[in-house]
Amino acid sequence: MFSKQTYQNRRKKLINNITEGVILLMGNTESPINFPDNPFPFRQDSSFLYYFGIQQPKLAAIIDVDQEETIIFGDELSIDEIVWMGIQETIKAKANKSGVEKTQAFSQLADYIQKAKSTGRKIHILPPYQAENKITLSKLLEVKISDLKPSVELIKAIVAQREIKEEQEIIQIENTVETSNKMHLLAMQIAKPGMKEYELVSAIKKLAADEESTLAYPPIITIDGQILHNHYYGNTLKSGDLVLNDSGAENKMKYAGDLTRTFPVDKKFTPQQKEIYQIVHTAFEQTKSLLKPGLAFKEVHKKAALIIAQGLIDLGLVKGTAEEAVKNNAHTLFFQTGLGHMMGLDVHDMEDLGEQYVGYTQEDPKDTQTFGWKSLRLGKPLKEGFVVTIEPGIYFIPQLIDMWKAENRLKDFINYDKVEQYRDFGGIRIEDDLLITKEGNRLLGNGLISSVEEIEDFRAKHLS
Amino acid sequence: MFSKQTYQNRRKKLINNITEGVILLMGNTESPINFPDNPFPFRQDSSFLYYFGIQQPKLAAIIDVDQEETIIFGDELSIDEIVWMGIQETIKAKANKSGVEKTQAFSQLADYIQKAKSTGRKIHILPPYQAENKITLSKLLEVKISDLKPSVELIKAIVAQREIKEEQEIIQIENTVETSNKMHLLAMQIAKPGMKEYELVSAIKKLAADEESTLAYPPIITIDGQILHNHYYGNTLKSGDLVLNDSGAENKMKYAGDLTRTFPVDKKFTPQQKEIYQIVHTAFEQTKSLLKPGLAFKEVHKKAALIIAQGLIDLGLVKGTAEEAVKNNAHTLFFQTGLGHMMGLDVHDMEDLGEQYVGYTQEDPKDTQTFGWKSLRLGKPLKEGFVVTIEPGIYFIPQLIDMWKAENRLKDFINYDKVEQYRDFGGIRIEDDLLITKEGNRLLGNGLISSVEEIEDFRAKHLS
Repeated sequence: MFSKQTYQNRRKKLINNITEGVILLMGNTESPINFPDNPFPFRQDSSFLYYFGIQQPKLAAIIDVDQEETIIFGDELSIDEIVWMGIQETIKAKANKSGVEKTQAFSQLADYIQKAKSTGRKIHILPPYQAENKITLSKLLEVKISDLKPSVELIKAIVAQREIKEEQEIIQIENTVETSNKMHLLAMQIAKPGMKEYELVSAIKKLAADEESTLAYPPIITIDGQILHNHYYGNTLKSGDLVLNDSGAENKMKYAGDLTRTFPVDKKFTPQQKEIYQIVHTAFEQTKSLLKPGLAFKEVHKKAALIIAQGLIDLGLVKGTAEEAVKNNAHTLFFQTGLGHMMGLDVHDMEDLGEQYVGYTQEDPKDTQTFGWKSLRLGKPLKEGFVVTIEPGIYFIPQLIDMWKAENRLKDFINYDKVEQYRDFGGIRIEDDLLITKEGNRLLGNGLISSVEEIEDFRAKHLS
Repeated sequence: MFSKQTYQNRRKKLINNITEGVILLMGNTESPINFPDNPFPFRQDSSFLYYFGIQQPKLAAIIDVDQEETIIFGDELSIDEIVWMGIQETIKAKANKSGVEKTQAFSQLADYIQKAKSTGRKIHILPPYQAENKITLSKLLEVKISDLKPSVELIKAIVAQREIKEEQEIIQIENTVETSNKMHLLAMQIAKPGMKEYELVSAIKKLAADEESTLAYPPIITIDGQILHNHYYGNTLKSGDLVLNDSGAENKMKYAGDLTRTFPVDKKFTPQQKEIYQIVHTAFEQTKSLLKPGLAFKEVHKKAALIIAQGLIDLGLVKGTAEEAVKNNAHTLFFQTGLGHMMGLDVHDMEDLGEQYVGYTQEDPKDTQTFGWKSLRLGKPLKEGFVVTIEPGIYFIPQLIDMWKAENRLKDFINYDKVEQYRDFGGIRIEDDLLITKEGNRLLGNGLISSVEEIEDFRAKHLS
């Protein structure tokens, strides 16, 4: 946990940004795998962590904006539970560490909410994502689950606070990015023909565990980099393949890292792989260098699209000018994803609060219709203290190529004959995590090799 | 998946055991970690697996008992999803593999239920454990979540079927027990002073992954074996410690293994450890040998209690006769848990259906009050085809000792002065998985070392 003052100050600031009423923050519960007593590992809700730092299931907290009073609701262990689970620090003791003096049994939360409702006070809630919390909130507030209304005022206040990382948070994020760097170096070191993808997964999980970390999200470690959400690890690495490794650690304080590297199973990229890789790498380096306060992230995304389009024009896959191709979204046949997103306590930071609030502004809302652009999680102007990812990529998705080709879509911009030569190419993505500083930006962590030369040198050294 | 006939036969048998109406089986959904797009690994519901074998989220199935018609409800991937997730086998194709011809969009399930309800047909459901399924069932059946009523007829029919393992299921279980054996041997091989508990966890997870398996439950790998539900792995193994390793694999077909071994961090047990270990090992070997059809498992549990009591009498921790001590539940100061449980697709097989139905009979229901006995998950007479665990243990739980001692509880049976000498001993458990056969029982897997001599020999060979 951070210091008591940290949590007190964060709550104080939150109270100052809410006009009136009562804030109800739900902690997470354990989710069952196949029966109630066999749950997945517990992960606390990130906003709950941000304001209280307590990693324990079945808690809720009330922050009374008008009285400036905070109460944590939760049930202390019974003697039966202590016998089964050992002596644990009490909720009271944990609450005190985050500067909360008052704790009550969970069942008393219902009374509290009843009273608040009966006196006509506004009760601010966040959008629940755990089904268990949807049920609890529905009971507490006596409204149907479909009628639960998150407080936009609360969401905006929390986003405004969590999006600007504190110095001590940046230290935590750098710590977990450093673990992530090591995970990536290890994968690049041990990968070889004949190995299974899941062997790389095991190796990086072990490394994370050795640093008292877990993974922040199910890793994508695949020779099918073109499958964007790929959690299958059963393929065998073969000579000629590329390995796309998108993985990041989550440290003890629950901060996330999120890095991607793509490297050849052989010592060297093939000439074709190298050409595509260079385009992605140029987009990666150039867009990173642009990041600074005031610049809208969607402009950075557009810059990546332009670089990718130009690179593909040079190779003959795209026709016309880069500017025109991007204006017509021709780049989205190859670059279907967003360039990046916020990162912090969540790998997609605060995504549960709503992308519109986290990544966009009321004046310039998210484009939720256009293919490619609708996958951009962050569009709004950057501010000092944001932590973001930069992750351009080029992906050859056979199903998408077939679909576009059948429609002859954007035929003035796409050279489908040439594209067919890359049909089985796969996909390449390169990703780093960066802090927006006063003057520009700073790479988080000590840096991880990414250029063709660096990766080929490293592979040559380790692949016997 | 098993053969099409397997699933067809299983459903046919189920239909024959239900008098009338419609069976609604819910598949599982993905549970979010910290936001909806970051879910835990998907695990299908075991009853859904048993009758359909399809490992995919967001499915439901109707088995019409009267018409003998089966429909699987689920949404095929959109082109957008195929772009993101790659080409997948359709639900229709998967359904066909389990002999189901009819598939419909998930949204059509509501219409189906409406129609069934309006014609007064009984709709049989199982007790939902995923909160998401509670919400879905509540909407579908138009009753409050707290008013959802599982069908006892359906529960009993499914228990009667799933508790008798088919030949092909036994092959699967032996397969996963064999992987579990290897996990345990590996831990016993590599453990050494200075190592962290989580290093053992990483090693067995890697081994499971190498056999295309996962773990069937969060493993307990600890030097604090007396903490029964212990999922902390941050301790350092020290000379003089015992390591309790309770872990099992889940194979591709989703069958579970569940084994426990306790071994010294040193090459040898201390004399005190050896004495206690021998008692547990005697209980382990003797109760295993008893297992046969017709014998009530709670009698086997009682036998374990008697052996443990006698052993502790011999050491001077318990006073009086074993029979009297057990009658008065004096053994529960040391042996607080149940001797075993059903195992199959779930590590505690069918626990979501209710212990009363899985482990007990109407005539001889579970004792839910008495400490020790209330933790016994299985009490009823064994049948040929059951797969059960045998897991006696002796645990010195300081909080429990203090509580009993303060009350002077069972002072005629407990020698508290002597017990104090074992206060920091920890805990020992030994566990195997067995099949009840026509004549008696058969150990599943090729067997794993368990005696003091075997374990000391193995440790001496590997600990340099």
